[in-house]
Amino acid sequence: MSIPSFCIDPMGKALEQARKAFVKEEVPVGAVIVQDNRIIAATHNLVETTHDPTAHAEILALRQASQILQTAYLTNCAMYVTLEPCAMCAQAIAFARIQSLFFGAYDPKGGAIDHGPRLFTQPTCHHSPEIIGGLRAHECQNLLRDFFKKLR
Amino acid sequence: MSIPSFCIDPMGKALEQARKAFVKEEVPVGAVIVQDNRIIAATHNLVETTHDPTAHAEILALRQASQILQTAYLTNCAMYVTLEPCAMCAQAIAFARIQSLFFGAYDPKGGAIDHGPRLFTQPTCHHSPEIIGGLRAHECQNLLRDFFKKLR
Repeated sequence: MSIPSFCIDPMGKALEQARKAFVKEEVPVGAVIVQDNRIIAATHNLVETTHDPTAHAEILALRQASQILQTAYLTNCAMYVTLEPCAMCAQAIAFARIQSLFFGAYDPKGGAIDHGPRLFTQPTCHHSPEIIGGLRAHECQNLLRDFFKKLR
Repeated sequence: MSIPSFCIDPMGKALEQARKAFVKEEVPVGAVIVQDNRIIAATHNLVETTHDPTAHAEILALRQASQILQTAYLTNCAMYVTLEPCAMCAQAIAFARIQSLFFGAYDPKGGAIDHGPRLFTQPTCHHSPEIIGGLRAHECQNLLRDFFKKLR
């Protein structure tokens, strides 16, 4: 018997990934990529652990999914991420032609979707996914708040 | 006897990298990162070869340099790249706190420094390198023009 599609919980899985980042003392952001109701990538921020300034959850998820599908173009995939993507990740999402983007907490300081450069509204942006922001925003935000409170 | 500092030719090396991309039928863009008059990373665009939407020359150079120096923060490094960086790469350059950015050809369609979102001028951008654009622009541009002419 196949698992019914409603059993997958991508934002829950992204939150689980964010909690893994928290434990590693990384800014707690998690991301997953879904294709055909199947999670094909699940990653979390690893900038400090890997000494890689590009190792945001979204970049790692795009790289993981593109390796699995053996293509740089994830046209029929959705991304779920616990925080509004920054300009680096938003542009990478556009390059990968992600179909739908669901994010959790809004990020007025570093976000590039509803804040800052609002990347997908730029006339030079060649691909914009469908976007739903604020999904389980409180849970995503609380995790970030707890992390930065612990840091101080 | 140490090699005099004027002997390194970072934009020449970036162009050499761009030509390697050309041969692999990748959009010909090359990048190098310099620290203390020493080239510590030299990379070229590998999006198609590696099926990785994030594998722009600049991202690969940042990752290479950060692995060599074992830090995500390349504060005393300069980047030389043959094309004006896109928003993904510009934001990654900001995250890595690159000190100086030298680029070759201007990119009105995809660039994010002097075009599009002009990322380093955004109030949400926390770090902006010193920037010199148009370095050996004709050579960099000609290589791109030849590539797209061949493609048609």
